[in-house]
Amino acid sequence: MMEGLIQIYTGDGKGKTTAALGLAVRACGHGFKVYMIQFMKAGWDYGELKTAMELSNFTIRQFGRPVFVDKNNPSQIDIALANEAFDHAEEIVKSGKYDLVILDEINVALDYKLIALEKVLDLVRNKPEGVELILTGRNAPKELIEIADLTTEMRDIKHPYAKGIHGRRGVDY
Amino acid sequence: MMEGLIQIYTGDGKGKTTAALGLAVRACGHGFKVYMIQFMKAGWDYGELKTAMELSNFTIRQFGRPVFVDKNNPSQIDIALANEAFDHAEEIVKSGKYDLVILDEINVALDYKLIALEKVLDLVRNKPEGVELILTGRNAPKELIEIADLTTEMRDIKHPYAKGIHGRRGVDY
Repeated sequence: MMEGLIQIYTGDGKGKTTAALGLAVRACGHGFKVYMIQFMKAGWDYGELKTAMELSNFTIRQFGRPVFVDKNNPSQIDIALANEAFDHAEEIVKSGKYDLVILDEINVALDYKLIALEKVLDLVRNKPEGVELILTGRNAPKELIEIADLTTEMRDIKHPYAKGIHGRRGVDY
Repeated sequence: MMEGLIQIYTGDGKGKTTAALGLAVRACGHGFKVYMIQFMKAGWDYGELKTAMELSNFTIRQFGRPVFVDKNNPSQIDIALANEAFDHAEEIVKSGKYDLVILDEINVALDYKLIALEKVLDLVRNKPEGVELILTGRNAPKELIEIADLTTEMRDIKHPYAKGIHGRRGVDY
């Protein structure tokens, strides 16, 4: 296939993982093989899991545990899980068996310093040409943005109704 | 089901339609019924079409034609097609048969003045409670953002390598 791009979805707004999921689903529709590795996640979004099971050529694997990771003092377990995720990502990317590899929330793992930036930069710089790589999560490091082909920031637009999930429907409008 | 939100994905960056597609796929995974109406589009993204065909409960319909719409002088045909899309959207939303309705690129149809803003605001304000509504496309009008529960702006982050699709890999890094 043609040369795969390096894409980043970052920012505080919604839609980073869902955009990657949408790309995954499109790629599967084209017959490409997709592998999504979720960093710092445990506990399935049942919708994603079911989709992955229904669509041929789509694999998802999670590395994480269902507890809050303390950014200022991450535990050894969280560091080990994130590095396990990275090692698996490296294996999947380098295998060349997948057309699209999504490293979901890897930017957060970097921001929390669970994994070393240099290792991730190396993997991204040396990916096989045919592999399209998507990295998601807020606070993408600038060094990663520099080597990406496309970076999109999802921004929350604040407005008076954004205070509660349900806004103030029926009250204000 | 619970009260559906009104979500907008706008901005010049990538990921608006794909985020909506990701949400669609998740919702289908949960057994919800999803209907996506694409304004000003003709010619299938084969990946999306194939996904819609594979996933139960997911319907996509396109209204548009494969020509460039002149923003400053849209043709009567484009106006008619956009209004046909809107009428269909109204029917689908009001039917209450779908849990998630995506009005893809409707913001562009509004920006091009192919459809009347007041009609869209009426539909959004008066949607059945159980329906989640997603509106995508750049230049979402502020009146729509005001009544939305969540608005996300996808922003292109410019960097030195963003000039060509393939950046300058091998040249600059």
